[in-house]
Amino acid sequence: MRKHNFSAGPCILAPEVIAGAASAIQNFADMDLSLIEISHRDKNFVAVMDEAMALTKELMGLGDDYQVLFLQGGASLQFCMVPYNLMKAGGKAGYTVTGTWAKKAVEEAKLFGNVDILGTSSDANFNFIPKGYSVGHDLDYFHCTSNNTIFGTQMKAFPTCEVPLVCDMSSDIFSRQLDFTQFDMIYAGAQKNLGPAGATLVAVKPSILGKSGRSIPSMLDYQTHIDGESMFNTPPVFSVYTSLLTLRWMKEQGGLAAMEKVNTAKAALLYNEIDRNRLFYGTAAGEDRSDMNACFLLQDESHAEVFNALWKEAGIVGIHGHRSVGGYRASMYNALPLESVQVLVEVMQHLEKTH
Amino acid sequence: MRKHNFSAGPCILAPEVIAGAASAIQNFADMDLSLIEISHRDKNFVAVMDEAMALTKELMGLGDDYQVLFLQGGASLQFCMVPYNLMKAGGKAGYTVTGTWAKKAVEEAKLFGNVDILGTSSDANFNFIPKGYSVGHDLDYFHCTSNNTIFGTQMKAFPTCEVPLVCDMSSDIFSRQLDFTQFDMIYAGAQKNLGPAGATLVAVKPSILGKSGRSIPSMLDYQTHIDGESMFNTPPVFSVYTSLLTLRWMKEQGGLAAMEKVNTAKAALLYNEIDRNRLFYGTAAGEDRSDMNACFLLQDESHAEVFNALWKEAGIVGIHGHRSVGGYRASMYNALPLESVQVLVEVMQHLEKTH
Repeated sequence: MRKHNFSAGPCILAPEVIAGAASAIQNFADMDLSLIEISHRDKNFVAVMDEAMALTKELMGLGDDYQVLFLQGGASLQFCMVPYNLMKAGGKAGYTVTGTWAKKAVEEAKLFGNVDILGTSSDANFNFIPKGYSVGHDLDYFHCTSNNTIFGTQMKAFPTCEVPLVCDMSSDIFSRQLDFTQFDMIYAGAQKNLGPAGATLVAVKPSILGKSGRSIPSMLDYQTHIDGESMFNTPPVFSVYTSLLTLRWMKEQGGLAAMEKVNTAKAALLYNEIDRNRLFYGTAAGEDRSDMNACFLLQDESHAEVFNALWKEAGIVGIHGHRSVGGYRASMYNALPLESVQVLVEVMQHLEKTH
Repeated sequence: MRKHNFSAGPCILAPEVIAGAASAIQNFADMDLSLIEISHRDKNFVAVMDEAMALTKELMGLGDDYQVLFLQGGASLQFCMVPYNLMKAGGKAGYTVTGTWAKKAVEEAKLFGNVDILGTSSDANFNFIPKGYSVGHDLDYFHCTSNNTIFGTQMKAFPTCEVPLVCDMSSDIFSRQLDFTQFDMIYAGAQKNLGPAGATLVAVKPSILGKSGRSIPSMLDYQTHIDGESMFNTPPVFSVYTSLLTLRWMKEQGGLAAMEKVNTAKAALLYNEIDRNRLFYGTAAGEDRSDMNACFLLQDESHAEVFNALWKEAGIVGIHGHRSVGGYRASMYNALPLESVQVLVEVMQHLEKTH
C-alpha cells in the first residue's frame, strides 16, 4: 500500500531519489562497484561533490562569494561551530529564540561568549515569530532559525543586518524563493528537504571567517573544509550522493519557484481545512504558520481514537505531534505530493461528517 | 566483471551487506517506506541502534563498563574530542606518532594542552612502530593508532598503562582478536571494516569522563551522547544500519576469531609473494607489517606500465599506493576474499615469469 509520509524528519524523499540511491548502492557510475565501497577521491565521487556544491549555489542563486560545504554532525554541531568561528573572545552575538533548536543554539553560543536574546516566544510555547527587534552593530553576528519544525512556525522575512546574518534553515531549505544573498551563512541538516541524515549543508561567505582570534580545532574550522573543498576528511559519501540526486530532482521540477508553488498549495489546502473544520484548530499564529510543518489539535480529545484509526487506514504515517505541542503535526516537505495532503484533508472531513 | 577491490577506504563490504543496504533503501523492515525517510525515533530504527551497540560489545568482549556510540565526523573529529574530554587544563597527554593520522591527532591535542611524544618513526617515513617507551603516571591519557593505513604498519602489542589508554582503530577494528578491555577508549571511522563513511564508532568507559574541568560543547561531549543513547541528535541512519549488517555478518562468520584467521591467511599469502618475488619489495619493517594494508614497490620502476596493465586486466582496483609511499598498497580488509589476494599474487608471478 502506498504510504502518505508526513514524517517530520528524516522524511519523505522523491521516489526517483530513493530509486537512484538504491541503484548506486548496487552499482555506482557503471564501475561494477557500490557507491559505498570506493574511495571518496575517485574521480566519479569527486564529480558528485563538485556537482552538489555547484547545484546548491545555482538553486539558491549564490555567487562565487559563497562556499558550499557538506559536513557532518547535523545542525547540532553547527550550534557550536558558528560561535567557534564567528564570536570574538569577549564578544557578543544576537539570537532569536523561536523553538527547541534555537534554544539549543543559544546554549552552545553561551559557552563562547555573551548572547543577546533579541526576541523570544518562549512564554507562548513558541507559537509565534518575534518581530520588531533591531540587530545592533556591536554584535559579532546575528543568528536565527527560519523554520521551527516542532512548533510549526516560519520566518516570512528576515531583519536587516549590518553584522553577519547566520540562519539555521534545516527544516525549510530549498522550500521557497528568497534572496539568499541577504545571509552570510546558511546551514541545514540534510534530512528534511535534501537527503538522508548524515550530511549538513553549509553555505558561507569566506569573507566573514578568520576574525574571531580563536584557535579552532581543524574539523570545527570552516576554513579547513573550504581549503579541502569539502573533502578535508572522508565525507558522508552516501548522504552527499543522495543529496545530489535531490538537487537534480529539484532543478528538473523547475527549481525553487516550482518547490514554492507546490508547497504553498499544500499548506493552503491543509490550513484551510484546519480553520474550516469545527473539530480541529491550529496552534501557530496565523501570519507565522509554517508551510513545512502544520501543527493542529482536536477540539475534543475524545475523537482521537477514531481519527487515529481513520488516518492510519488511509495509509498516512508520521503525523503524531511532538510532545511539546501534542496533537498532530503534518510535515509537508518538498517531496510530499499534494495528493497526500488531499488524503489527509478527506480524512479530516470524514471525521467531521461522522461526528 | 567481478572486481577485486583493494581500496584503502571507503572499501569493500560483504556482498550480503551491500544487498541488504540496497534493499532497506527500497523498503525497510516491511514498513513500505525507505530506511532514509523514517524518523530515527521509529521503533524499527531504535532497534537497529540498540542491536548495533550490543553486537559491537559482544564481538569485542566488552562489558557494561563500556558505552558504545555511533557518532559523526570520522576519526578526524575524535582527534579534538579526545583532548576536549580527557585533557585537563594545563594537563599533558602522551602520543605515539606512527603516521599521517597520528600526526594529525597530535596537532589537535596541542590546541588543548601539552603533548609528550613517547615514540615516533617520522624519520623513517613511518616504516616501523616505535616500541620500548613507557607511559608515565603524570599523563592525562595515552593515545596511539593501532594500524597505519598509508604506511602499512600495525601495532601487534600495546603498552601497559596506568592512565587511560585511547586507541584510534579506524583501519583495523574488528580484524583480529585482542583483549579490548585493555583500552579505556577505542574509536574508528566506519569506512574500513564496519560500513559506509559517515559513522564513527566509539567505545568508551564512562568512568574516565568528567574529569577535565572543561566546558565542552554538547556535541563534542561524550557524556551528551551517552545520555542520549547515541541519539542526542539525528544519527547517520544509513551508515549505522549498514554497519549493523556488517556486525551481523561478522558474527555469522564466526566473530573476530574467524576474521583474524582469514586476515592472517590473506596477509601471509601476499607478504610471502612480496618477499619471494625478485621484482618487488615491501616497505614496512617485517615485524610491524599490517595485516590490513600491504605496501610494496617494484624493484624496477620500468615494469610499472606492464604491471599496471596486468592487474587492471585481472579486475583489480584500488591498489595504487598513497603518494607518501608510492608504489602499491593492497588493502585487505575483512570483506576482501582470499581469492582476490590469490588473483593479485598470480599477476605478480606472471610479471616475474615474463620479465
